[in-house]
Amino acid sequence: MIRIGIYGYGNLGKGIEKAIEKNEDTSLFAVFTRRDVQTVKIQTPGALVLPADRAAEYKNEIDVMILCGGSKSDLPLQSPELARNFNIVDSFDTHKKIPEHLLCVDRAAREGEKTAIISAGWDPGMFSLMRLYSEAVLPQGVTATFWGKGVSQGHSDAIRRIEGVLDAKQYTVPKEEAVISVREKGIVPPTPREKHERICYVVLKEGADAERVRSEIITMPDYFADYDTEVHFISMEELVRVHSGIPHGGTVIRSGQTSDGVSHGIEYSLRLDSNPEFTSSVLVAFARAAYRMSKKGQYGCSTVFDIPPVMLSCKERDTLISELL
Amino acid sequence: MIRIGIYGYGNLGKGIEKAIEKNEDTSLFAVFTRRDVQTVKIQTPGALVLPADRAAEYKNEIDVMILCGGSKSDLPLQSPELARNFNIVDSFDTHKKIPEHLLCVDRAAREGEKTAIISAGWDPGMFSLMRLYSEAVLPQGVTATFWGKGVSQGHSDAIRRIEGVLDAKQYTVPKEEAVISVREKGIVPPTPREKHERICYVVLKEGADAERVRSEIITMPDYFADYDTEVHFISMEELVRVHSGIPHGGTVIRSGQTSDGVSHGIEYSLRLDSNPEFTSSVLVAFARAAYRMSKKGQYGCSTVFDIPPVMLSCKERDTLISELL
Repeated sequence: MIRIGIYGYGNLGKGIEKAIEKNEDTSLFAVFTRRDVQTVKIQTPGALVLPADRAAEYKNEIDVMILCGGSKSDLPLQSPELARNFNIVDSFDTHKKIPEHLLCVDRAAREGEKTAIISAGWDPGMFSLMRLYSEAVLPQGVTATFWGKGVSQGHSDAIRRIEGVLDAKQYTVPKEEAVISVREKGIVPPTPREKHERICYVVLKEGADAERVRSEIITMPDYFADYDTEVHFISMEELVRVHSGIPHGGTVIRSGQTSDGVSHGIEYSLRLDSNPEFTSSVLVAFARAAYRMSKKGQYGCSTVFDIPPVMLSCKERDTLISELL
Repeated sequence: MIRIGIYGYGNLGKGIEKAIEKNEDTSLFAVFTRRDVQTVKIQTPGALVLPADRAAEYKNEIDVMILCGGSKSDLPLQSPELARNFNIVDSFDTHKKIPEHLLCVDRAAREGEKTAIISAGWDPGMFSLMRLYSEAVLPQGVTATFWGKGVSQGHSDAIRRIEGVLDAKQYTVPKEEAVISVREKGIVPPTPREKHERICYVVLKEGADAERVRSEIITMPDYFADYDTEVHFISMEELVRVHSGIPHGGTVIRSGQTSDGVSHGIEYSLRLDSNPEFTSSVLVAFARAAYRMSKKGQYGCSTVFDIPPVMLSCKERDTLISELL
């Protein structure tokens, strides 16, 4: 059994706990939390709840620590720190900062003779793999990634920070014309506005000015100004009843040519009932790979691009070859 | 530049030649043929046409030999033989015999200190990878592979061998109900008949008995008896005009759960104008991996499951991480 530690017990941490149960070769040793351990109830009989700042004391009890903090302020500190004492896996998803994060974690993991795998969710993660494979096997062509229909947590948070907003949920939705353009013509629409639209469900505080809130949303730089954005004001009751899930998904499309007039299309789609549960399930597969790599002395920080697929499965190589190849 | 040899110059060999042109780090050294070299005209200026039985003389001029023979009688002999002298890649596609083929090629490649990668097309190949990744990241669930709509070369050949048949083309077509059943209910229909149908376009010889030919097709064991099979008799003119392409494709679907009532779907689809050209393009990407593995002294026979994705791309790892992760 691969003994897993969960570092952080929000949506992602809870998803890891469920994923460990679905994988026959993994077991949960402990959840580490910054909250009062008495207040954190977990689902796994026999597993411990321990204070985050005492994690290092358990370095010999844990084969892989899965980090479940946020990419903005948690993982940039936690991943390098924990990689000195543990094999780790994280889902760091600030695409632009991945090279920097990789360097920091790599240095720490090499010093500690540990194996780290970063950015192992679905994007970055499975979608990244599909972008790489598709481009490698069809070098002449274009790739487009569409996200949604699904809930964007960061955009929902941004709306919640607007004065007068009680709660909000934002859906990212690919534009069908854009998908068809890539699929059928090999043309990726150049602007964000042409690829996705944003649909917001907003619950106002009593007395808030709806038009001002709408205007603040649709003009918000980076988040909404570059998109066609719909804003719907709804009741808290409706938000809870209709929009409490965290579904997501999307599609990576590559359209390419192997000779004049000979085209091919590759599409990889995910339809996820729960973004954090699927991300967790991916993280546990890569935790298995981290464990195996550490056994082979392959220390330092890897990405999903570096891992032979055979390392992700709990089945033996011979079985995979006869059953799945 | 990675210097490639093409061993066999049928549809696949011609596809490899085109794929080499689309990859900036590969060049064609020579085509090896069993035919009279004077009769074989290739498209690449400066590349040689050489007799297959003299291949070994060119072992120092070729970085990777890509084998383009058939899986039935060519590759079981050629792959082990050539793997003693060359890094090789093949697209061996008799699924049941892959473990045996792997063993033979592995022994030869280790003796010759060469790197071999077998079964590297799209199925086996890209579809196998998707089956493995999908199962690893969603361990509880079902996987189904659908082929088509596309031309099945083996089934077309089987029809051509029937007395009274001048020419024929067979399309394999997934049944939409079956695709929906996997996607929406996570249920894979148990019989071949429920998953695919077979549509045959047949040109009869003059005076042939159409009903006898139809009956021989639809009752043919292994090939057609277990399927709903449509037979259409058409003219040679129509066969050439409408059915000369070799399109193919298909979909791998995984439907799985991460907890009670929380489902996820993964779908990987290929739509190929030309089956041999796409297969060729995949083979060239894996030839790059074979070349790099041989430089690292990683000898013996690998499958697509064993290759870190980063090895398939002509781009540097750092570039892949910043552009595609």
